[in-house]
Amino acid sequence: MRSDKLKAAATKQGKPANFAVFNQQNIIYFTHFSGATALLILEDGENILYVSGVNYEQAKAEAKDCAVELLKRGESVIDKIAMRLPAAKLCVDSLSIESWYAMTKAMRGENNLQAADYLIRDLRKIKDAEEISLTREACRIADIGVKVAGEVIRPGLKEKEVAAEVEYAMRKAGSDGVAFETIIASGYCCAYPHGTFLEKTIEDGELVIVDLGALRRFYRSDITRTFIAGKVGKKEMRMFETIKLAQQKAFEAIAPHVLAREVDRIARRVIEDAGYGDLFVHNLGHGVGLEIHEAPILSPDSKDLLEVNNIVTNEPGVYLPGLGGVRIEDTVLVTEKGAERLTHTPIVLE
Amino acid sequence: MRSDKLKAAATKQGKPANFAVFNQQNIIYFTHFSGATALLILEDGENILYVSGVNYEQAKAEAKDCAVELLKRGESVIDKIAMRLPAAKLCVDSLSIESWYAMTKAMRGENNLQAADYLIRDLRKIKDAEEISLTREACRIADIGVKVAGEVIRPGLKEKEVAAEVEYAMRKAGSDGVAFETIIASGYCCAYPHGTFLEKTIEDGELVIVDLGALRRFYRSDITRTFIAGKVGKKEMRMFETIKLAQQKAFEAIAPHVLAREVDRIARRVIEDAGYGDLFVHNLGHGVGLEIHEAPILSPDSKDLLEVNNIVTNEPGVYLPGLGGVRIEDTVLVTEKGAERLTHTPIVLE
Repeated sequence: MRSDKLKAAATKQGKPANFAVFNQQNIIYFTHFSGATALLILEDGENILYVSGVNYEQAKAEAKDCAVELLKRGESVIDKIAMRLPAAKLCVDSLSIESWYAMTKAMRGENNLQAADYLIRDLRKIKDAEEISLTREACRIADIGVKVAGEVIRPGLKEKEVAAEVEYAMRKAGSDGVAFETIIASGYCCAYPHGTFLEKTIEDGELVIVDLGALRRFYRSDITRTFIAGKVGKKEMRMFETIKLAQQKAFEAIAPHVLAREVDRIARRVIEDAGYGDLFVHNLGHGVGLEIHEAPILSPDSKDLLEVNNIVTNEPGVYLPGLGGVRIEDTVLVTEKGAERLTHTPIVLE
Repeated sequence: MRSDKLKAAATKQGKPANFAVFNQQNIIYFTHFSGATALLILEDGENILYVSGVNYEQAKAEAKDCAVELLKRGESVIDKIAMRLPAAKLCVDSLSIESWYAMTKAMRGENNLQAADYLIRDLRKIKDAEEISLTREACRIADIGVKVAGEVIRPGLKEKEVAAEVEYAMRKAGSDGVAFETIIASGYCCAYPHGTFLEKTIEDGELVIVDLGALRRFYRSDITRTFIAGKVGKKEMRMFETIKLAQQKAFEAIAPHVLAREVDRIARRVIEDAGYGDLFVHNLGHGVGLEIHEAPILSPDSKDLLEVNNIVTNEPGVYLPGLGGVRIEDTVLVTEKGAERLTHTPIVLE
């Protein structure tokens, strides 16, 4: 069970092996259930999922590896957890500031509580077979979305109309929804890494960044391709070739026991050498799983070490304010031998 | 400016009128910009939006009512905020537990900090003309989504195929995406208020709950209609008529200066009188705006008082485990005279 791994990790680091989990994605990670108020993992006992009436029947039918306890109207989950642990210490993943103080009081003082979200963060970095399988499905569907984008993009179409077509195609291909808000950004809008005005019409000759992901049973994919609406200019082609090379070099560097910041450095150097150093304004990548941005982080100041079964993005980009940008991104699995691309759309500017 | 209202509210309650805002929706509320790290509202000065490189150019072009400051790699936003306030007290909306302690240290002790998210929560309850206009648009689009659902639902279709059609129609009608994950739940699945297995095929005679919303420039809508795939049975019709009446009675009770829990009570009593009391397992409604669930809350234990320009849902439901459920929901604006439905789809079981 995943909670056994958490208890082992906590014990190894001298932390309490009782854990109150409030973050929704963390609760899904341990129980496969979305919609609970809290999960209590007990050092010497079972896991208890606290669920209010609205989701109680569904939790009983669907939640894994836990007992389900009804949280009645007016009952405080913090008090219920504290009552279960009258003489023990407790780790917590995340709480609002007000609830943290209430928890401190209920647990007889700050000394009995530890914020230890990072233990779950680290556990979630390494995906198991089920997680990898769901991510593969989400990547397969995202490839279909990008393919449709390439087919429909043309001058005169609105960015939002492209979004409609790709999301429809992904739903038809089995997506449970989108992994994050679809980005279709053209011309000056795609000079912003997250730019998407949506009402904009794509003009002749503009670069169009398509950044999207699918969702399969809570797991997400993330892919970006850059298209051009019309004829390719020399400047656009040079930006594209630089980013394509940076992405390829970074991919070749991804392997277990490699520092994530080293992979970022390799991509960054290619872009710097081409004279675009100041225009690569973001990190190279991030973990993908239950959240679209999770550990490990591939950035110049990351402390993460890549490990087998990490799933990360590899997404260098370059952005010329007022003009446009290019970004190329794949979702990548770290393997024993190095890395495997989970997204497969060909990388061509057209 | 919205931040002036916040400062006035803080002062009135004896709280510091300097505010560090970290919650994304709160930042959007004050600046119209998504993607900043933090917003500092200064009692005696301007608002400062801290943005990392990835979104800096976009923030300069789009953010309203604030100066934009670049957060360089390695710089701590907490230290930057504390340095701006060497001798002042500060309110904070939300932070991770670890960051809260870092902030406490940077601000020279706990006494100089106050968790005061509720001040922004209360401010956001009352929508201004711009917010109401965007919500109206989002509601208009959601009506189109529900209309399409009614047209396509039939035995043999998968829940997920219905979701594909309604989301496509909403995108085509101008939605920026979905307000939350679309729920299409049929038969035993719609006996769970949030149930949606998505792979399920709709069977003849099953109830189908369609709960969806559109998104317009960060503002959301929320509507539910219940359909039937085939002929209506007596049991289903009785559940439907009960919920329809409960929803109508609750709507008639919505008005300024009315306690939100009183509106919940009115709907709940109709359902209890029909013998379904134990099966209405959730609150009557919630505020809608930048978040799909926000203040005020319409529940039996709510302390909220309804006010002019609140936007809330009115969504009674009844759920028979193993069999199916009925829920009817509109997004409603509280007006001087009472209430106005912002979603308009006819309420008919067919």
